[in-house]
Amino acid sequence: MAENKEKTTIVLFSGELDKAIAAFIIANGAAAYDHEVTIFFTFWGLNALRKDDQVFVKKGFLEKMFAKMMPRGANKLGLSKMNFGGIGPQMIKHVMKKHNALSLPQLIELAQEQGVKLVACTMTMDLLGLQKEELLDGIEYAGVAAYLGDATDAKVNLFI
Amino acid sequence: MAENKEKTTIVLFSGELDKAIAAFIIANGAAAYDHEVTIFFTFWGLNALRKDDQVFVKKGFLEKMFAKMMPRGANKLGLSKMNFGGIGPQMIKHVMKKHNALSLPQLIELAQEQGVKLVACTMTMDLLGLQKEELLDGIEYAGVAAYLGDATDAKVNLFI
Amino acid sequence: MAENKEKTTIVLFSGELDKAIAAFIIANGAAAYDHEVTIFFTFWGLNALRKDDQVFVKKGFLEKMFAKMMPRGANKLGLSKMNFGGIGPQMIKHVMKKHNALSLPQLIELAQEQGVKLVACTMTMDLLGLQKEELLDGIEYAGVAAYLGDATDAKVNLFI
Repeated sequence: MAENKEKTTIVLFSGELDKAIAAFIIANGAAAYDHEVTIFFTFWGLNALRKDDQVFVKKGFLEKMFAKMMPRGANKLGLSKMNFGGIGPQMIKHVMKKHNALSLPQLIELAQEQGVKLVACTMTMDLLGLQKEELLDGIEYAGVAAYLGDATDAKVNLFI
Repeated sequence: MAENKEKTTIVLFSGELDKAIAAFIIANGAAAYDHEVTIFFTFWGLNALRKDDQVFVKKGFLEKMFAKMMPRGANKLGLSKMNFGGIGPQMIKHVMKKHNALSLPQLIELAQEQGVKLVACTMTMDLLGLQKEELLDGIEYAGVAAYLGDATDAKVNLFI
Repeated sequence: MAENKEKTTIVLFSGELDKAIAAFIIANGAAAYDHEVTIFFTFWGLNALRKDDQVFVKKGFLEKMFAKMMPRGANKLGLSKMNFGGIGPQMIKHVMKKHNALSLPQLIELAQEQGVKLVACTMTMDLLGLQKEELLDGIEYAGVAAYLGDATDAKVNLFI
C-alpha cells in the first residue's frame, strides 16, 4: 500500500443499526475515494460482526448470558431512536429497500470487497465472551495499540 | 475563502437537544476562532433543522409516520439522558436561560451568522421522507462525498 | 513539553460506564505511546469525575435535583446498553475483574499517573450546578476555547 494514501478510521462502539449504517456509508465512501479505511469494532459494535447462525462454542455462564442478550449479527440490530420493540428497524429497512439503498449486510460485504479493514477489538471480545468462530470471516483481530497506530496516521478519525 | 484557514467538521447524527447544543457550541467556538466549519446533519440530527411549523408536502405513508414521530425542530428535541417525558429538556432550558446561555435556536442562528455551513444529508432526507421545504432556510444539501471532501482537509472531525 | 509530541483529545460527553471505559482505554493507550492526551468532560461525562462521597455545597433547587438524579462518580455509572436497572454494570464489572481488566476508577487513576490532562467543562458545570469541591482532585477547568486549542494541534480527536 502506498504511503501517501489518505487514511480514515472509525471506532464502531455502538451496536445500533442506524449508527452501523452511518459508519459503513462513511467507510465505503472513503474507500471509494481511495482512502485506506479501518473500522474498529468494540463493545456493542462487535454485534454487527456476529454470524447470523448460532455457533456452538464453550462459554461460561456470564458469557452465555451476554451472547443471548446481544443481537446476533447485522440483521438483528435495533435502532438508537424509535426502536418501538423492533418496528422501527423494519420501517428503516423498508424505506431503504424502497430507495434502493444497500442494507447493512450488503454494506458490510461492499466494505470487504473494497478492502476496508474490519478489526474486532480482542479485549472487548474477551469481556463479552465472543469468540472468533462467532464472527464473520475475513476480519482482523487487534487491540487499542493497533487502533492508535492507524488513527495517528489518519486525517479522519470518528467514534460512532 | 483562504486556503490556510483551519477546518472543522461535525457530523450531527443524534437528534437530542444536549448533543445538538454540544455540536453547536463547538461549531460556534471554532467559527469564532476563524475556522471554516461545517455541520453535516444526518439521520435524527436532521430534526434539529426542521421548521417549527408544519409544512404541508406530499408524502407516502411511512414518510408521514416518520414525520409525525420525529421531533419538529430545535425547540422540540428531547435529552439523551434524564428526558423524563420532556421534563428534562425543560429543566435544561431553564438553567440555560438562568445562566444566560444561548438556546439551541439562538445557537443555530449565531452559527448561520458566523458562516458555519449547515449541510443536510440528502440520502437520509430521502429515507426519512424529509423535504427541503420542511427544513430551515439558508442550509445546503449534499451527500457523503461532500462530507469526506471537507473532512479530509480538516484538523478536527467529530461524530456526535 | 516538546512540540513534536503527538496529541490526542477526547470529548467525553456521555455519562455511561461503557463509554467512559472506552474513552479511558484509548486515552491511556495513547499516553503509553507518549501522546499528549486531554479528556474534556462535558454534560453527563462530568459525572465520571464526581467524588464518591456526597460533598455539601450550597445549591439552588434545580441544581440539587440534577445532583440527586445524576450518578455520583465512576462507580455508579450505568451502561448505554443492557443496563437492566443496574445488573448490566455489575455483569460488566464482574467480567472485567475476571479478565484482570482495570476498573474505571483504576483507569482514571492510571490516566492521572500518566499525565493525561482531565479537564472539566466549566460551562456545563454551571448548567448542571456542579462545583469544584464535588469533583476529583488534580483536574483542570476550562471552556470550549481551550478544547479547540488542543484539538486543532491533535491528530486524533474523538467525541464519545
